[in-house]
Amino acid sequence: MAHLQQKLELALVNLDKLTLRSTLDEYHFADIGQALAEFAPKEALPLISMFSLADRAKVFSYLPPYMQADVAALMKRHKLAALFSRMEADERADLFNALDDEQRAMVLPGLAQAEREDLRKLASYAEGTVGSIMTSDYATLKEHWVVSRALKQLRLEAPDKETIYQTYVIDRERRLLGTISLRELILASPDTAVSDLMRSEVVSVTVDQTQETAAHQIRHYDLLALPVVDEQQKLVGIVTYDDAMDAAEEEATEDAQKSASVGKLDETVDRVSIWELYRKRVLWLVLLVFGAMFSGAGIAHFEDTISSHVALVFFLPLLIGSGGNAGSQAAALMVRALATGEVDKSDWSKLFARELLVGFSLGLTMAIAVYGVGVYRGGPEVAIIVSMSMVIIVLAGSLVGLSLPFMLNKIKMDPATASGPLVATIADVTGVLVYFSLASLVLAI
Amino acid sequence: MAHLQQKLELALVNLDKLTLRSTLDEYHFADIGQALAEFAPKEALPLISMFSLADRAKVFSYLPPYMQADVAALMKRHKLAALFSRMEADERADLFNALDDEQRAMVLPGLAQAEREDLRKLASYAEGTVGSIMTSDYATLKEHWVVSRALKQLRLEAPDKETIYQTYVIDRERRLLGTISLRELILASPDTAVSDLMRSEVVSVTVDQTQETAAHQIRHYDLLALPVVDEQQKLVGIVTYDDAMDAAEEEATEDAQKSASVGKLDETVDRVSIWELYRKRVLWLVLLVFGAMFSGAGIAHFEDTISSHVALVFFLPLLIGSGGNAGSQAAALMVRALATGEVDKSDWSKLFARELLVGFSLGLTMAIAVYGVGVYRGGPEVAIIVSMSMVIIVLAGSLVGLSLPFMLNKIKMDPATASGPLVATIADVTGVLVYFSLASLVLAI
Repeated sequence: MAHLQQKLELALVNLDKLTLRSTLDEYHFADIGQALAEFAPKEALPLISMFSLADRAKVFSYLPPYMQADVAALMKRHKLAALFSRMEADERADLFNALDDEQRAMVLPGLAQAEREDLRKLASYAEGTVGSIMTSDYATLKEHWVVSRALKQLRLEAPDKETIYQTYVIDRERRLLGTISLRELILASPDTAVSDLMRSEVVSVTVDQTQETAAHQIRHYDLLALPVVDEQQKLVGIVTYDDAMDAAEEEATEDAQKSASVGKLDETVDRVSIWELYRKRVLWLVLLVFGAMFSGAGIAHFEDTISSHVALVFFLPLLIGSGGNAGSQAAALMVRALATGEVDKSDWSKLFARELLVGFSLGLTMAIAVYGVGVYRGGPEVAIIVSMSMVIIVLAGSLVGLSLPFMLNKIKMDPATASGPLVATIADVTGVLVYFSLASLVLAI
Repeated sequence: MAHLQQKLELALVNLDKLTLRSTLDEYHFADIGQALAEFAPKEALPLISMFSLADRAKVFSYLPPYMQADVAALMKRHKLAALFSRMEADERADLFNALDDEQRAMVLPGLAQAEREDLRKLASYAEGTVGSIMTSDYATLKEHWVVSRALKQLRLEAPDKETIYQTYVIDRERRLLGTISLRELILASPDTAVSDLMRSEVVSVTVDQTQETAAHQIRHYDLLALPVVDEQQKLVGIVTYDDAMDAAEEEATEDAQKSASVGKLDETVDRVSIWELYRKRVLWLVLLVFGAMFSGAGIAHFEDTISSHVALVFFLPLLIGSGGNAGSQAAALMVRALATGEVDKSDWSKLFARELLVGFSLGLTMAIAVYGVGVYRGGPEVAIIVSMSMVIIVLAGSLVGLSLPFMLNKIKMDPATASGPLVATIADVTGVLVYFSLASLVLAI
């Protein structure tokens, strides 16, 4: 990629169209877009402008979203409008949403009436919904056509459609009747009726379902594209596999961040502002500090026990840490399994029963591991207290970690909120209470 | 799906082929496979056997891996061999790997010589590599062909190829020369030479690269399939987008589990054995217990300070927990960004500088949050100790959490090993030392 970067810089210095366009022979649009993202918007604009309009639209579509908006802001009105009309419907809608009101007013008159309405509709769906990632550039067939007619039509439409490999049969009201793949069309005899060839049991989603659902369906059924319908079963768009892959990646990133109590970032971690990074981390950290004060209050309650046996404090980080770790494990397993659909809420009791056994075994193993240190540091009595506490704390942590994602799910919250830090904080409180209660009991005898 | 389940049960009781096959009109193979997975292998076998061979191979391919092996184990030799020969090359290889030696010896004679060699090769690649998810069912074109010849050939081969939408142009030695999409073939005039139409700058991978790399390339370039070549640039297979999606999902699951120090599970969390679940969790838990003993040792060192100011213990869980939480956040952000390729090792110093500022701001905010409680619980001196410790501990935790994934990457370990629990344990030790050192210093004055 260093070579591509150099070529782009050379083209920029000399304003040399030939050098610039020659990059297209060697590199994919995705790489050119990525390389251009390293330039300042002011430098990227003249570079992008040197491409032919069709290539420009392609390169532009591979720029990261923040860069698209910045470059668009510098473009002349008619240039932006021209670019706009060549972009793919779904990408155009995303860019439209990133523009300010003035820019929007600039590009709208450049579009045909139908395109304008299509754009307004696509741009109106909330982020994270199927509507926000679907496109309106799909190929449709009429049910009374024969295969040869269908193929002719597809050949005509191919340049403007996001995919022609999966086509959709609709009636006059645009209701979805069935689907046919290009492979099936090619293999069929030319005079077969489309209605005979189509598969009429079609998996579809609606605009307001989550993009995760669409990605899950595409993966489950190995689809190239998933049709999107409205309440009357009318076809309004499709979600293609590549957008579904991006959506799945985005969701996995969000879940990975949530697993450590970080809010959803607007941009990638290397691009996001320091303020945004602070803001998305501080909320949970402060909440958890107040959670941890319950541990403190627990300790205050046992101040006498601690004063008379300071050696007990030695084992405190070890015990509460272990409960938190076991709990984090159980929570991470459940959050992911709920996200992928491997388990659902009805599985909780079965999984709880298993966790009873696993958590107990883990606690017992760790109790044995620390028993020796307990004897060495605090004598046999303390060793017994520590070991017994370990079993209870690890088991309790595991059960809390396992159950919390299900409880959050039940009250319609994202199970991923059951992060490691949250589970660890809850386990800390439990750990303090169990440990010092046991200690007071045993040592008072 | 409850309806599908009922239908299958009915078909099983009556051994009724018609009922069974009628499910195919209503449901996708993926759903039938999923529903069959709920049956015991002994029940699933007669059900599967009632499908026609072609449908049986399809349904079978959608069974989860553990179920495939169990059902195959119950099948008669010639039935299994027949099924085997109808499966797709990559899925056949996966099943082959799940069979025992005796079963392998049973199925091999049923295959043609070429298929047998193909199978042996595909089955030989290590799990997690490109080789393990690629297929040998791809469509190739010769460079001297014209478009009409190419289309004719594709029509012939379509039923046996995993995809005909992306085709590969090879020379006599099977070296990869270029690639053409079916869309381009259909749009081109019939007498255009394949060599003129093909795109010769092809993105490819080799068999021993990781499946993550393949998935990343497919996503980055929006590919339908990615060609796999050997050292001599000879085409040996393709990875299709649907297998790449599965691989990406699998990797995200593995990383989610690693983020909480859980080893890679052989099966989904609801299917995995209790022993396996115990085994994959206990290792890190016990390791971390010994890590936590350093915290204990730190506490033992400050036993006098603690004895004379027991109120200090009140703030211990709060302080070490906060360091762990901030560190977990930073680690989770970096592990994910490294996995998606948003950042690479060269970005560490830049990110470290940012984290200095973010971590300090977070620490300061939390110090302010606990200052009041500090005064209330321990007086102004303790409040200052707690607040100062908070700033240092949160900053240190953040920097450790940020850096650990990069260090692991440097020594060729998976950055995801920098789990929340590991970072929290390190932060605990740091926290104990910082807090009680400061306390000894200030309170001794």
